[in-house]
Amino acid sequence: RFIIFHSNPFLIQLFYFISISFAGFLALKILEPGNEVNRLKNLDLFFTSVSASTVSSMGTVEMEVFSDSQLWVLILLMLVGGEVFTSMLGLQFMKARFKSEGPTKKRAESLSTDLEVPICTNLDDESQLKCTILAGTLSKMHLPEGEHLKHDAIQYLGYVVLCYLIVATLSGSSFILLYLSFVSNARDVLESKGIRISTFSFFTAVSSLGNCGFTPANENMMIFKKNSILLLLIVPQVLAGNTLFPVFLRFMIWVVKKLTKREELNYMIQHPRATRYKHLLPPEHSGYLAFTVLGFILVQMVLFCSLEWNSEALQGLNSFQKLVGALFQSVNSRHAGESIIDLSKLSPAILVLYVVMMYLPPYTSFLPIKDVEWRSVDEKEGNERGKLLKSLIFSQLSYLVIFITLICITERKAMIEDPLNFNVFNIVFEVISAYGNVGFSIGYSCQRLLKPNNSCKDAWYGFVGRWSNQGKLILLFVMLFGRLKKFNMEGGKAWKLS
Amino acid sequence: RFIIFHSNPFLIQLFYFISISFAGFLALKILEPGNEVNRLKNLDLFFTSVSASTVSSMGTVEMEVFSDSQLWVLILLMLVGGEVFTSMLGLQFMKARFKSEGPTKKRAESLSTDLEVPICTNLDDESQLKCTILAGTLSKMHLPEGEHLKHDAIQYLGYVVLCYLIVATLSGSSFILLYLSFVSNARDVLESKGIRISTFSFFTAVSSLGNCGFTPANENMMIFKKNSILLLLIVPQVLAGNTLFPVFLRFMIWVVKKLTKREELNYMIQHPRATRYKHLLPPEHSGYLAFTVLGFILVQMVLFCSLEWNSEALQGLNSFQKLVGALFQSVNSRHAGESIIDLSKLSPAILVLYVVMMYLPPYTSFLPIKDVEWRSVDEKEGNERGKLLKSLIFSQLSYLVIFITLICITERKAMIEDPLNFNVFNIVFEVISAYGNVGFSIGYSCQRLLKPNNSCKDAWYGFVGRWSNQGKLILLFVMLFGRLKKFNMEGGKAWKLS
Ligand SMILES: [K+]
Ligand SMILES: [K+]
Repeated sequence: RFIIFHSNPFLIQLFYFISISFAGFLALKILEPGNEVNRLKNLDLFFTSVSASTVSSMGTVEMEVFSDSQLWVLILLMLVGGEVFTSMLGLQFMKARFKSEGPTKKRAESLSTDLEVPICTNLDDESQLKCTILAGTLSKMHLPEGEHLKHDAIQYLGYVVLCYLIVATLSGSSFILLYLSFVSNARDVLESKGIRISTFSFFTAVSSLGNCGFTPANENMMIFKKNSILLLLIVPQVLAGNTLFPVFLRFMIWVVKKLTKREELNYMIQHPRATRYKHLLPPEHSGYLAFTVLGFILVQMVLFCSLEWNSEALQGLNSFQKLVGALFQSVNSRHAGESIIDLSKLSPAILVLYVVMMYLPPYTSFLPIKDVEWRSVDEKEGNERGKLLKSLIFSQLSYLVIFITLICITERKAMIEDPLNFNVFNIVFEVISAYGNVGFSIGYSCQRLLKPNNSCKDAWYGFVGRWSNQGKLILLFVMLFGRLKKFNMEGGKAWKLS
Repeated sequence: RFIIFHSNPFLIQLFYFISISFAGFLALKILEPGNEVNRLKNLDLFFTSVSASTVSSMGTVEMEVFSDSQLWVLILLMLVGGEVFTSMLGLQFMKARFKSEGPTKKRAESLSTDLEVPICTNLDDESQLKCTILAGTLSKMHLPEGEHLKHDAIQYLGYVVLCYLIVATLSGSSFILLYLSFVSNARDVLESKGIRISTFSFFTAVSSLGNCGFTPANENMMIFKKNSILLLLIVPQVLAGNTLFPVFLRFMIWVVKKLTKREELNYMIQHPRATRYKHLLPPEHSGYLAFTVLGFILVQMVLFCSLEWNSEALQGLNSFQKLVGALFQSVNSRHAGESIIDLSKLSPAILVLYVVMMYLPPYTSFLPIKDVEWRSVDEKEGNERGKLLKSLIFSQLSYLVIFITLICITERKAMIEDPLNFNVFNIVFEVISAYGNVGFSIGYSCQRLLKPNNSCKDAWYGFVGRWSNQGKLILLFVMLFGRLKKFNMEGGKAWKLS
């Protein structure tokens, strides 16, 4: 227990994701229907398990090969792999650590080891100086008395987030269920595929809220591209589970505070950074985040509508359906990855924009104000050797380039023989999609083969499904790397570009 | 005069490059041989002029259409557009400014407006504080007495850089001339093309030293891929004119100091930052720069040799020639852009690596030590409105994505009809090549057309030569943007990625 609490949070999360992926793989394997002739390869099953637990929804197999019980395994994986759930686990750890160390020991060690001291970053020199002095004073003054309240606040925050997760999942799935029970054409599609309505509703709600992006149907949401109301029901779930989570959470705390008038809730709102919960942001930061998220959606919608309004991709839809479709795609590029259209039919300009959207981490925000960041002191400490090691860490983009280069090497044969499917951009798209845990894919089409080949059969899985085993393994690693990217955002600082 | 000295250095340089490009365009236009049936389009001539003056060597026309006198116009453009030359001009400006303000006025205003105060960046908080205090003290103590010496040092540095430029150009062209006078097969190739040996030698020397990358031959250096000695003569010129310039310059100053024992030279070496000349780096920084440059070359050579040793691209070469060819390509990706092979024949993995190499600015350096940067105070000052405006500036990568998206829109028709030539990666490659002022291009091949077209004729110019006029204009702008990128490296700081 002691060891776990004091070890590296990165290692804890890495261990967590690998274990649930393995557990998921075993469960999927055991539950596999015995009568099937062409059994799935172990690598593909493991890939699917990692893809669900890292909420990436990159696919190497069609979804309809999974039985109902296997779908529930995937639901479980998406649930425990989603950021809201893992961040709640983080709060439990923090609470446990608080308890095990105790307030007395805490007070004694407070300033030297564990208390947060505001690290004033991103400021110019003068402000930096003022900030450091001010922060030092503040931390000495406030913390001893606030200690108890803070402990309660963290405990309470855990409940609030759990509540948020339960309410959002249940209401999301009930809305979808309600929609399906009223709209017969949507229900008929699922019934013809042999997918249970209840499974679909819960699966899609969990998948949307967790920003995983799997659905039980092969075609993802393409079969529902005319069911605009259903799409509009899913959009807020996607936003609530990821890019706008801090905004929704803050709003929920504010509402509950108004209702219950508890001091802990007030403390959370007043000192969002003191809880060390990275999803609880100060008010201005939340505002800028919402502004950025909506801005990105708007930019994508404008480009999408101006280039695709009369295109093949949106054929057969009326104006309202096109608009909702554009909104749905724009919201899903960060980072759920559900899709109502064949991405390979879209203009390259939009795909380039999607690459950027997929790359940007969830809480990317235009933030001209200076946000005083709270980090623990032990994060900052480090000996000379640690500093040297740190300087060897590359930036995120460097790692991505390395992954892309490696995949260009593993797939080099196909890139020569089948250049319209296997081109560098499609590989970049797939890698960035995996890194951003999105799940978009340009896919593979037998029509794009230079020499028509009768043995080639189109399938409803992503481009990665056509890669070599080594390529798949690299992408599997990229998904894990992307899911844990928050621990590595500081890399590459030893490099000076000028 | 007063206005120019006090105006924005960015605007001065922008004005400078636009004027020499226009002058070059007019000179090329006037000198165009009258008898030619298919005259060059004005846009292509202007593009070539911008391409030479921004030392990019992106091509929309074949080089052999230019007459000898037009080649000399290009030589002049490459000479005055190269970084060594423009940085020398910068030193002249600085000197003139020093003189016009005078030492008395200087002393009075010293601390408030114009003297350098070391801005301690990239440090952690403690070091930052110490550094700021120390630097303040130092600047107060040292500068009044050092003022005179500094003025002389800047003046002297101007001479040294001019010397460097002349020596490097003359020795470079004499070596090439000497080689050509000894090796008849190389001479014969040029004579059969009607290119004068003397023009070729001087053109190639200026082009290599300035890292422009044009040569008078259509095939660039492809015709000399077996002339390894010639390639080995050009490699140090390419390095001396760009990525290793600070190292070579420092070495030259050190040698001249040993010979003449002048105090100004000693001052330059002791206080490289005080001269405000960004190409004069402190010793450790120079060391890390050299280490980084050689590291990049090594990485490229290893990947190149391991993937291409037995490939089509290097067919017909012996091992030594292959090795020299790999070295030549690796050096030229940053940022001269001369080439001995058809890049479209290379493995995609290498092309991806080239994109990174082309993107990285010349003085990219692994720099784990903390380098105290010297900037003038006025650079740092700015009112609230200025800060807001600054926060709206995007990062370099964002601009590049915008350019790429725009070109995907202007070339959207060709991207559908001719996807093997017009694909996103080839466009990205061209844009990054223009941004890095490199000049590499994957080119265009009629063989890659999906439906063979008899009216399509292969030509010896870059991919951009096949773009629409709007596309060419955007790339022209990208070359200028890339040439002036040093003024814009600080953008995007108002964005928080997390
Ligand atoms: K996803
Ligand atoms: K160049």
